[in-house]
This record gives sequence, C-alpha cells and structure tokens, in this order.
Amino acid sequence: MSRVVVLTGGVGGAKLVLGLVNLLPPAGVTAIVNTGDDFRHLGLHVSPDVDTLLYTLCGRANRAQGWGREDESWSFMAALAELGGPAWFKLGDRDLALHVLRTQALASGATLFAFTQRVAERWGIAATVLPMSDDPVATEIATAGGALAFQRYFVEHRCEPVATGIAFAGAAQARPAPGVIEAIGDRDTRAILIAPSNPYLSVDPILAVPGIRAALAAATAPVVAVSPIVGGDAVKGPTAKLMREFGAPVSDRTIAGHYAGLIDGLLVDGRAPAVDLGVASACTDTLMHDLNDRIRVARSALGLADRLGR
Amino acid sequence: MSRVVVLTGGVGGAKLVLGLVNLLPPAGVTAIVNTGDDFRHLGLHVSPDVDTLLYTLCGRANRAQGWGREDESWSFMAALAELGGPAWFKLGDRDLALHVLRTQALASGATLFAFTQRVAERWGIAATVLPMSDDPVATEIATAGGALAFQRYFVEHRCEPVATGIAFAGAAQARPAPGVIEAIGDRDTRAILIAPSNPYLSVDPILAVPGIRAALAAATAPVVAVSPIVGGDAVKGPTAKLMREFGAPVSDRTIAGHYAGLIDGLLVDGRAPAVDLGVASACTDTLMHDLNDRIRVARSALGLADRLGR
Repeated sequence: MSRVVVLTGGVGGAKLVLGLVNLLPPAGVTAIVNTGDDFRHLGLHVSPDVDTLLYTLCGRANRAQGWGREDESWSFMAALAELGGPAWFKLGDRDLALHVLRTQALASGATLFAFTQRVAERWGIAATVLPMSDDPVATEIATAGGALAFQRYFVEHRCEPVATGIAFAGAAQARPAPGVIEAIGDRDTRAILIAPSNPYLSVDPILAVPGIRAALAAATAPVVAVSPIVGGDAVKGPTAKLMREFGAPVSDRTIAGHYAGLIDGLLVDGRAPAVDLGVASACTDTLMHDLNDRIRVARSALGLADRLGR
Repeated sequence: MSRVVVLTGGVGGAKLVLGLVNLLPPAGVTAIVNTGDDFRHLGLHVSPDVDTLLYTLCGRANRAQGWGREDESWSFMAALAELGGPAWFKLGDRDLALHVLRTQALASGATLFAFTQRVAERWGIAATVLPMSDDPVATEIATAGGALAFQRYFVEHRCEPVATGIAFAGAAQARPAPGVIEAIGDRDTRAILIAPSNPYLSVDPILAVPGIRAALAAATAPVVAVSPIVGGDAVKGPTAKLMREFGAPVSDRTIAGHYAGLIDGLLVDGRAPAVDLGVASACTDTLMHDLNDRIRVARSALGLADRLGR
C-alpha cells in the first residue's frame, strides 16, 4: 500500500494528519511525532504531542480548547491546588488516565513506542503514530535568565522570555523509535511531509535524532514541508516570535532556508507574495479551520510531492 | 497538655478519633494509623487508612459512601476503563491528587510521616496523625487459593475467600514512625485507646511493628480497647467472618482474649450480655451513627481508662 509519512509536532501538525487520514486510507498514514516536549510532571510521564495526535485521530481532541481531551473535567487540579500542588500545568481528570497508565507502563519496562501502539489500537486508530524516539530528548530554550525546559517556557512563561538558542538534551544519544527509519525509507512511501508545526520547537527535535536527517536525504520519496507562515505571521504559537528573536524575517523564505537541503518543495499560503524561495513550491489557503481545510492542505501538499518526485 | 493516643484502622477507627477531637482539645489527640493496607496501584502509593483519618479530621470524608472524599467525581476512572486499565480499585479524581503528590514526595525521599504531617498542616488538622511506620508493611491474607494482598482480598474479592491466616510482610524489619513510641510512652498520655477497627486486619499490623507492643506494656497510661462487636456481630467489614473462619466465637470475649495482656479494659456494646471478659469493662451503645454517638463512645472509653489507671 502507498504510504505517506508526516513529521509533526502537536496541534497544528495533527490537523494535517487528520486531513491525510480523511483523504487516504488511514492505514497508509504514518506520523513521526516530536517527543522533545515530553516531561515528567508530578512524577507522571507526559507526552503532549503524541497525546494530541492520539486524541485527534480517535476523535477525542478538545476542539474548543485546542489541546487536551474533549469532555474534560478538572476535579484533580482543584484538589491539587487545595493541597498546594503546582497549578501551572493543567492535567484534566480524563487526560490523567493516559499519563498514569503510560508512567506505569514505562516503569514496567515498556517503551513509549509500545505504549503508544497499545493506545492507538485500543482507540481504533488505523494510522500509525510513532514517537520520534523511545529515548529521552528534552527541548530546552536558552534565555537571558538561563535555560528553560520546554513546558516551563511554553506553558508557565507563555513563551514570553526572549530565546537566545534552543537545545535538545539527550538527542545525540537518542535512537529513532522502531518504524521511524523504515517508514522514511520505505520504497512504498509516496511522500514525506513536514507539518506546519514550529520548525524550531517541534520539527528540529525530530531532525536532531541521529539517523533521521540521513534517512530523509536517502529517501526515495519527495520531502515537502507545509509552511507555518500565513500573511507574514505564524498561525499560532511562538514561531514568528522566535524568528524575530533569531534575526530572521517572518517569511516563507526563512522556512525554506531553515529546511534547505532537506526538502524538495514547500507548500505556502495562497496569500503569500510570490518570491523566490530557492525551492519548488505550491500555494493554497493553508489555514485549517475545519476538516475540509485540513483535507485541502493535505491534498495540496501531496499534489506538490507527486509533481516533484525524486 | 494531657494526651490521648488511639491505635486505629480506617473508617470505624476514624469515627472514634473524630469523637475524641470533638470532646478534647484536638492537639492532644494522636492517632497511630495502620499502614498494612497501603499498596501501589497504577504506580501510585495509596494509604487508605491514613487518608481516611485525614479526610475525616478535616471534614472532607465522603459520609454517604463510607470511604474516600466528599464531592468526588469519577472522570479518571471512566477514561481508565476506556483505555483498558484496571477498574477494581476506584480512585476518585480529587482523591488522586493526594496519591499523586504522596507518590512524588516519597520518590523524592520524603517519608510517609513527613508527607502526612504536611497534608495535616495544610488542611488545618490540629490532631496528630502518625502512620504506624515509614517502612513498607503489607498485610496478606492466606487462603486456599494462595496469599492475597490486602486490597485484592478486601476490595477485589470483597473478603469472600476463606482466610486461613494473616501475615504482615515486612513488619519484622519495620520501625515505628517518628512520634509513635514517644506518644505511647509519654507521661502526659492519659489513655491509650484501641479503636473498634478490625483486630486482625487493622490493629494487628500496628502491633506487629517491633517496639510497639513493648511500648504499650511499658506505658504509664491505661490501654482500653473498644470492641467492634455489636449484638453478636461486627458492625461492618470482615471482622465477624474472620472470627468464624479462625474458629473463635463472635463475641467480646474473643476480642478480650485477642488483646489479653495488652489492654487494661474493654468497652463493649451496651446490648452485649454481661459475661466474664477476663478484663475490666464498661458498656455503652458503641454504634456510631452521628457525631453525638462518636463523642459518647470516646467519653465512655476515656471514662473507663480514667477509672482503671495503671
């Protein structure tokens, strides 16, 4: 069966993956998911991006909130606050079940890969959700006030500190999770997409796992990124803010430059000016409000890949 | 300040302790609590009897249910079931906060004693709640089908298997928690009460911790037990069933015999026949439906202790 592989972070990337599974046979879609956001909180192993993929693909994502589970309740957090526990990272009562089971599974010797497959199977997810690695990789944001662990930066400090650099602790020792290199290199893989996730915080950690860049370079399938830039800004999150802090224009050109040598094409928003990106490109409306948008963006990215080949 | 010490299990014992703190200055009441029921579930350290004491003394106990927290919700359990997690032991969303924080505290090197004091202080509990030990002690029930860990026997199997014996794994190596021996031996201690908890499952684990029996024998304060037998049966739980399985009559005499050499007096239910118990005794209505009942039983037990002295 023809296969499409997507490198993805959480919310934005999950929208593209949802578009793909509504466009293609879901079993042919493989998501390779950032785990640089993973962290231990209250002794629990939290994998935000993997969970966003799982919740999105089984229809349990909280659409109104933009993260976490649908039909969520917050009694645990209320009781935690009453006990003086940390309130900055919100764990819903239902979401907790996933973290508690995962923590127990990992403590019993299971891998993050194996646990993720078990949940995907339980929830009837036909697509393949692969954590980028079973080994710990921790995204850290360097700031004038010192290094901040990802969730401290992203959630507690709401991306407010000025970033002076980004590091992926543990990445040099990490191995790709089972299936990652195989999916990228599979001769049946029709296209490898890079989701419109944050390039610095969500995609770079995946690319920092030794072996993944080389596999992308050696792949027979074309690699196409979807730009997160819309109308000179990023749709959400700190992408544009980081670009400015790193002295780069907030533009598709910066995205193309960031992925130079890695991608064969870039899908950009239809409203972007036509400038030389230094790489093949196509345009569509890349904002993904509803499922039709998601399917359209997925179709456009695949169309560009099919046109380019390798 | 004059002090009263209570050896106690969960629900029934907590009622007596609540009576005491409503009869006396709460700061003078010390509960030494069974931890033989403690276990790890889903990777979390659960201390059912300590928690029942904490919830009861701060007014957060679920009175209708008879265990757990008031105002509880069950979203976590619903999501856990959906994921195929174990459903036999129910963890409420609010209750979970205590288990998660305790597990994290213990993993960080805190003792159960220290964590319990922190929660008691946070919740404004003036009485002292002491786990019997910081060291692991696991009550195990021997049955024809093999040994059952306490919660498996009590919750999962609803005390249905016939018990052929009870063991307290780890007890021989356990040390009394800070304050336990001191409270028992304190010259200001007016009385040491044994709550109407299950003698085999809730009080014996406390007595199995080396040093506690000797401290009771050496104490200057009288030791008075409150019999859990009412009208030839136990108020709740498997006390009477265990007595039958161990070939002992379900009677105050069996209770007096069980604690022989340890207690100076036994408070029995007013409706019990007057037989020779082999130990000094007093009668009252020992059923504790409401707070007035609890205060009355506490007053009667203290009255018997005061009368006996040592």
